[in-house]
Order: sequence, then C-alpha cells, then structure tokens
Amino acid sequence: MAAEWRPDCAPQVASAAAPALLAVDWGTTALRGALLAEGGVVLAERSSPRGLLCVPAGGWGAAFEAEFGDWLAAGPDLPCLMAGMVGSRQGWAEAPYCACPAGPLDLVAQLLWLQPGRLAIVPGLSTEAGGLPDVMRGEETQVFGALALLGLSDATLVLPGTHSKWVTVQGGCITGFATHMTGECFALFRQHSILARTLPATGAAAAAEAWVPEAFDRGVLQAQAAGGLLHHLFAVRALSLFDRLDAASGASLLSGLVIGEELRAQALPARARVSGVVVIGSATLSTRYHRALGLLGVPVQTVGTQATWHGLAALMASRTGTLAA
Amino acid sequence: MAAEWRPDCAPQVASAAAPALLAVDWGTTALRGALLAEGGVVLAERSSPRGLLCVPAGGWGAAFEAEFGDWLAAGPDLPCLMAGMVGSRQGWAEAPYCACPAGPLDLVAQLLWLQPGRLAIVPGLSTEAGGLPDVMRGEETQVFGALALLGLSDATLVLPGTHSKWVTVQGGCITGFATHMTGECFALFRQHSILARTLPATGAAAAAEAWVPEAFDRGVLQAQAAGGLLHHLFAVRALSLFDRLDAASGASLLSGLVIGEELRAQALPARARVSGVVVIGSATLSTRYHRALGLLGVPVQTVGTQATWHGLAALMASRTGTLAA
Repeated sequence: MAAEWRPDCAPQVASAAAPALLAVDWGTTALRGALLAEGGVVLAERSSPRGLLCVPAGGWGAAFEAEFGDWLAAGPDLPCLMAGMVGSRQGWAEAPYCACPAGPLDLVAQLLWLQPGRLAIVPGLSTEAGGLPDVMRGEETQVFGALALLGLSDATLVLPGTHSKWVTVQGGCITGFATHMTGECFALFRQHSILARTLPATGAAAAAEAWVPEAFDRGVLQAQAAGGLLHHLFAVRALSLFDRLDAASGASLLSGLVIGEELRAQALPARARVSGVVVIGSATLSTRYHRALGLLGVPVQTVGTQATWHGLAALMASRTGTLAA
Repeated sequence: MAAEWRPDCAPQVASAAAPALLAVDWGTTALRGALLAEGGVVLAERSSPRGLLCVPAGGWGAAFEAEFGDWLAAGPDLPCLMAGMVGSRQGWAEAPYCACPAGPLDLVAQLLWLQPGRLAIVPGLSTEAGGLPDVMRGEETQVFGALALLGLSDATLVLPGTHSKWVTVQGGCITGFATHMTGECFALFRQHSILARTLPATGAAAAAEAWVPEAFDRGVLQAQAAGGLLHHLFAVRALSLFDRLDAASGASLLSGLVIGEELRAQALPARARVSGVVVIGSATLSTRYHRALGLLGVPVQTVGTQATWHGLAALMASRTGTLAA
C-alpha cells in the first residue's frame, strides 16, 4: 500500500542519520545499492545496468568502486553486504551454497568476506528433493527481508522472475524451495517459437506489451486442466488459425498458461491455500501472480523489491545485534 | 526391420509395373514423392529439401514440375495426391480442415482438386476438446496408412516430431487428437535456454548428438514425478552446477524430460496401456518413444515414414476401388 501523503510531515527518509550499511543486490543484468541507517532506514538508493554480464574478468573491484565510490568516500569504514549472482562461479568470488534448512544465522556464519569486517558476499542456498538439487542466489535475502517486514516465521513465498522460486519457511528457517523456469520459457515461447508468428512483434520494451486480463485468466485456468503445458501451448496457435484469438490477447494468454502451469505444478499445500502466499517482486510480475493465485482461491500478500534491503539489514543485525528495524 | 539380403532374388521393387499414383508428402522443410503401382507397391522414391519455406509465392507449380516433371512426362495421365502443409494457408492452396470424427471417405470427399481428376491436396483434420481447437496436416494420411499396414481399426497412435500428435482411432475413424509442441520445445531449450550453456555446442547435425540411454531414461522417469516441466528443466542446470551431470548426458536427459512430460500429460488411457500404442515416424524418434513408452509399461508397435505412401494409396483406393494393397 502506498503511504498516505502528509504535507505537514517531513519525508520518511532520515537524511541526517549516519549510514550504517551499504546494501548491494548484484545480479546478472543489474546492480542496485542502498545506503541504510541504523534500523534499516533507506538513506539513498541507486541502480544501474552494470550487471554481471557487463563486468570484464578481473574488473569487479573497479566496477564496485565506479558505482559506489562516492558513498564509500563519505564513510570509509562503512560495512557492505552483497547478495545475488555476484557470489556465483561467474561472479566476483564464488560463495559456496549454504544447505537448507537455513536461517539468517546460517547465512551470517557462511558470509564470504572479501575484506574482513568490511565487504562480504551472502551465500546462496541449496536444497535437495527427489534426488535432485536446486539452488538460489539473492532470493534467500529477499525472503528473510519479507519475513522481517511482515513479522512472519512460517510462510510459503514465491519470487517470480526468469527463474521463479517457491520457498517454504518454517520456524524462521528456509526448509526447502523449488525453481521454475517460467519467465525464461515465456520469453522463449513468446519470441522464438512458432507462436511468435501470430503474436505482435516484440519491441525493446516488453513491459509495454498489451495486457488483456481476460486472456491471462483464460490461460491460468486452462493450465489447470488436463493436457500439460506442451499441449496447451499449441492451442495459442490453433485458436489463431481459426481467428478465435486476437493478436493483442495472445501474449497475455501465453503468460497465463506458463504462470498457471507453475501454480498447477507447485501443487500448493493445503496450508498455503488457507494462510496464503507471499509474493515478492516487481509490481508488474507481482500483479500477475496475485491475480493468478486469486483465481485459484489462494490469499496473497505482496512485498516489493525493497525486501532485499530489509534482508541485508536483518543479516547485519543478526551479526552485530544492531541495525534491524 | 531391414530386409534380409538375398543375392539370388530380384529387388523387391517391381520396376516393370505401371505407375498408378504419384504420392507426395510436402511439408514445411522437405518435399518427398513416390511412384506407386497398383496395390501400393513403391516403384521409385525421392526427396529434397524443397519444403514450403523454399517455395516463393506463386512458385508452387514450377517447384512441383521441377521435382516430378520427369515422372509426369512418363505418365501424363498419372493422378497425384499430396498431403502435408502444402494444403495450409501458407501452402499451394488452402484445403479447409475436415472435422473429426473423420475416416478415409471423409478425406476423399473433401479432397481439394487443383486439376480435376489429376492433382489434389488431402485436407488436414481439426478437432475440438475442452473448448479449444487442434489441427493436423499430413499426419492423418500417415495414420490411415499405418492402420492399413497393421490391419487395425481401433488404435492409439503417436506421431513424434516438432509437433507430436496423439491420435485416437475407433472403428476406422480418427475420433480425436492432441498436439504437443515437444520437438520444438526441446530445440528451444537445447539451443536457446540457459541450459544450452552447460551442454555441448550444437553442430549442424543434431542427429550426431551424443545419445546416453541412461540419462534419457532418468529424464522420462523424472517427468512422471511431481514438480512439472518448468521445474524439472532447472534440474539440468542444478545438476551441472554440482558436477553431477556430465555434459554429454545433458541433451539426452533433456530429451527424456520433454518426451516424458508429453507421455505424462497425455495420460494414456487404460486401453492403450493394454493394447499398446502405434508409433509412426523416423527411426531416431521412434526409438526414443518406443523406449520411453516401454519404461512406462506400454506395449509399442512402430511404423516408418512409408506410412504416408500407404495412406495416400488407401485414400486413392477409397476413391477408385483400386490400388490399395
């Protein structure tokens, strides 16, 4: 919910407070940072497209300095925690996965310190189910941030995206999770499959794509029926052949089919159907998951991408006993 | 099964017999033709990459003449039946779909004659299930050919490929079918997804890709477990991250996952589990489906791509009362 506008009040950002933590979310395609005061209050925030893919080998320190040098100059002793793919094999340094079940103290114990006491990478998590491993990097931090924000210690959470993560939390620990390649598969089907031929050409701004809620709903519900994703996808083409699907609705139908398949396959346990699911993510994706879960009768709470800052503040607080809200 | 080599026998092709039908299978990427004698005996056979994608607008007659002109010169009154995407909106002429249930006589009644009595396109089929349409072009002809070859009038058949078709036949009629975009999705995942990064680079010859049966089996069985395709796909990556999957096995595992998902979603009716499934297709794909169905306890019969010639001969026989074996 947006904060109410109160013209007689000072801004919520306490710009006079001293920075206590440089919080960094360094992913594959983006680099975001925030200066946090004690209590986790955001003093300043910035982001750039300087993701992992843009950083040349050996250029990590320089990229970090270029992005945050001014902040660090103002607070030379400021500690910094980084989450995300920066800790992967292709990142600055590989932070070994922390095995589930894992709580904030487990992550803190396994921080990978690049500069002792100053600069550390939060490890990702690994889990094992049905004889197969699964991994995440960055989402664990968002999860602990969302739990702190919502005051929860038991929850089912989903972090939609290129690779959606479904996370189970019990007693404040992540006990397990499952990845679904939903966003990546949507993009493949949307842009490179035969279905692309009957959909409008994708421009540079995918966010500007037409959004037809009724078509999305139809896809979500269709995905719950028998037949399977590989079959349901073809209906997008067959409907077009018979002029039963206008081009503007096609992408929304396709989005509903893949998100609906993720929800079907995830087989939300009865507990989540009653207590609900926490959706963490950008506004656009969260809106779609909120809508899809609602169609299936699952209560939803949403948390934005500020969950990362709350998560890093919570980890810092677990380490030092201070900072957290 | 390959024919036994018998040095004291003449070739099985009866080259002295008169051609009775020019049978053509004109698809998106290939053009195949066969000269058939009365009884459906194959006198000669050829194929070229002159598929729909290679034919310029208005160039259909010229392409047909270039490919089969010599055969037609030798038999100027020879009738010709064509099956496949040649009858699609992007083909030579659009042959409207014939609605299921449909038998050979329905197809014959709806032949699209380009030259009356001489040159016709076999219509594709359409069906409707769960409020959604489905379509095929070319596979209907292969199905009737396989039924003629095997002497069946009730069967469950699968035609693996870019878009696999599962077909139900009752009393000699195709009563319904379902398309799965299995082959296309495999290629997308194999070549364009994040999974491609941990698999060997694909060369020009996909058929030359390493084949690891154990990895394929693992994928087929994994696909039967809970989790869904979007989740199971990610295991290919996670296994690689932990060095639990050698690169050579990855493509076979992926193949097993998508074919296994098709079989899971198709939810083979109890009848097919007892009486079996007829697989129609190329040797490579048929072998994989045969193996996957076997793993799931489903009996299999296989028919090669000659099913098209038997199908066109059967349709011609339905029309004229002659030619069929």
